Amino acid sequence: MSPDIPHGGNLTAARARFPEARSPWLDLSTGISPFPYPVPALPAEAFTRLPEPADLERLQALAARRYGARDPAQVVAAPGTQILLPLIAKLVPQGRARVLGPTYAEHARAAALAGHALAEEGAADLLTIVNPNNPDGRFRPRAELLAARPAQGLLVVDEAFMEAAPADESLAGAVDERLVVLRSFGKFHGLAGLRLGFAITAAPLARRLRDALGPWAVSGPALAVGLAALADEAWASAMRARLAAAAAALDGVLTAGGCRVLGGTSLFRLAEVPPGTFERLGRAGILVRGFDYWPDRLRFGLPPDAAGLERLAEALA
Amino acid sequence: MSPDIPHGGNLTAARARFPEARSPWLDLSTGISPFPYPVPALPAEAFTRLPEPADLERLQALAARRYGARDPAQVVAAPGTQILLPLIAKLVPQGRARVLGPTYAEHARAAALAGHALAEEGAADLLTIVNPNNPDGRFRPRAELLAARPAQGLLVVDEAFMEAAPADESLAGAVDERLVVLRSFGKFHGLAGLRLGFAITAAPLARRLRDALGPWAVSGPALAVGLAALADEAWASAMRARLAAAAAALDGVLTAGGCRVLGGTSLFRLAEVPPGTFERLGRAGILVRGFDYWPDRLRFGLPPDAAGLERLAEALA
Repeated sequence: MSPDIPHGGNLTAARARFPEARSPWLDLSTGISPFPYPVPALPAEAFTRLPEPADLERLQALAARRYGARDPAQVVAAPGTQILLPLIAKLVPQGRARVLGPTYAEHARAAALAGHALAEEGAADLLTIVNPNNPDGRFRPRAELLAARPAQGLLVVDEAFMEAAPADESLAGAVDERLVVLRSFGKFHGLAGLRLGFAITAAPLARRLRDALGPWAVSGPALAVGLAALADEAWASAMRARLAAAAAALDGVLTAGGCRVLGGTSLFRLAEVPPGTFERLGRAGILVRGFDYWPDRLRFGLPPDAAGLERLAEALA
Repeated sequence: MSPDIPHGGNLTAARARFPEARSPWLDLSTGISPFPYPVPALPAEAFTRLPEPADLERLQALAARRYGARDPAQVVAAPGTQILLPLIAKLVPQGRARVLGPTYAEHARAAALAGHALAEEGAADLLTIVNPNNPDGRFRPRAELLAARPAQGLLVVDEAFMEAAPADESLAGAVDERLVVLRSFGKFHGLAGLRLGFAITAAPLARRLRDALGPWAVSGPALAVGLAALADEAWASAMRARLAAAAAALDGVLTAGGCRVLGGTSLFRLAEVPPGTFERLGRAGILVRGFDYWPDRLRFGLPPDAAGLERLAEALA
C-alpha cells in the first residue's frame, strides 16, 4: 500500500484511482470535522465590498479571547494557516530548520522554500512541532515545548488540532519573540473551504506577518463566518464533547474491524491495519489517509453519521 | 483637503471622521463595480471541504481563456492580487524597484518589503506599471510596455482595470520570464470581498508563485463563484457596455457639479474639484477618494443607481 495522494481531501485523485468504487465517496481522509458550524446567511456586502479593517480587528480580538492570547495585537488572521508557513519561516535568518516528525509535510516544504537547510536532529534556528501531532496525536505538555524554544530563533507550535486534544495545553497565552502558535479555524469548525487561520506571536512579529499578508487577505465570507463562530462559545463547548463521542465510536468500529488504534485526536485516529486495507476501503468508496513511511498504518477521519460508521464497519468486515 | 484614509473602501474611518453624515453612506471611494456578478447558490461543500486541486486547475484554465493567456500553466490563482505583490517582488534578486506613479500605493510597499530599493527614475530590476493606471486612467499601448521590460529583471503590468479600459490592450498573451501580468477578479465583477485574482507569467515563474501560495490559497466560495463568472462571457460583454454608460452618466453629473473630469476608466473617474469638495461630500454621507499629493483632485467610483447619481448631483450643487 503506497497511496499516491499527497494530502487528504483529494477526491478527484481518489475517483481516478478507484473508478469502480461505490459512489458517493465517504471521505475519511482529512482531519476536518464532519459537523460544520452552521454558516449564517451572508450579507451581500461580504461578497461585494472589500473587507473592512475594523471587522478584521474584531475578528482578531475574538480569536485572542477564544484561543487565550494575552493581546489582540499578537493575533494575525490569514486565509488559512497554510499561507502563513513560508512567511513565518522567513521571520528567521536562513539557517537550520527542523520539523519534529513524522507530521504534516507542508512545514518542511515551507522551511525549504524560505531557504533553510532541513535538519533531522540537533539544534535548529526554526523548530516546528505540531501539538497534538498529526497523524499520531502525540501530545506534549506546555513546559516541554517552552523548554524547546531555540535560544536564537523561533519555535513554531502548530496547534491545528488543539480543540481535539485530550486537554487544552495551548501556548497561545505564552507567546514571545521566540514562539509562534498557529491555530486553524477550519478543522474544528468543519469549514476548511472558507480558508481562515491565525498566527499568534509577539506583537512585533505579528506586525511583520500582517505586512506580508497585506490589508485584505481574509475574505468577506471568512470574516463574517469567523465573527459568528468565534463568539459562539456554547457551540464550541458542545462540539468538543460531540467530537470526543464520535472518536470513541470510530475506535469501536476500527477495533471490531481488526485494526489497532494507536492514537490520534478526536478529529482523526491513527490505526495499524491489515494488509490491503487502503485498497479494500478504496474499492468500497471510502477514502482514508495512507503514509509512504508507514505502510501498515492508516489515518481515519470521523464519519459524519451512523450510516457512514456502518459503511466503514461493513467495508472492514 | 488631506483625507487620512489611505485606501478606498474604509467606511468605518469615514463614519468616525463625519459622525453627522447622512446615513447610509454612499461609498464612491473604490474602483469596484457597483453591479456585482450574481453570486450563485453555493454548495455546502464550498465551505466545508478543502478546495479540490482539480477545481483550481479548471479555474486557472478559464482565467487563461478569459484573459487571453496562451497556456493555463502560466496562470496562478490567488486570494486577491494584493497577496501576490510581495511574492512577485521576491522573484527578482534584491535591487532597484520602480513604480510608475502616481498609482496604487501597495506596489511600492510590496517592493520595499521584498528588500528592493525604491527608485524614482532610471533603470530598474523590478518595474511596475498599472495599465490603465489608477487613479488617472493613463493607458499605454502594448508595444510601449513590451519595450519597457528590464533586460535583467521583471516588468509587472497590473491590469486590474483592463476590462474598464478604452480598448483591450492586455499583455496576458505575451508574458515571458521578464513579464508578469496581474488580473483582478473582484473589481470588474463587483465582488471584492470574495478575494480572487490572478498572476500570469512564464510557467517556471508561475510555478514558483504557486509554491509560495501553497495548495489551498483560494477559498471554496471564491472557486465556486469564479468558475461560474469566468465562464459567463455574455455577462462580461454586457457589463463592459453597462460600465461605459454609467461612467458617461457620472461624467455628466461631475461636469454639471463644477468638477473637471481629467480621466479614468469606466470603473472610476478622476476629476479636478472645487476646494472643500471632499468635506462637503463627506458631510452628505458620500465617501470619495482623495490624494495627499493632489489636493485639488478626487477619484469617484460609479454610483450604483439613479438615486445615487442624484444624491451626488445634489451634494455637488
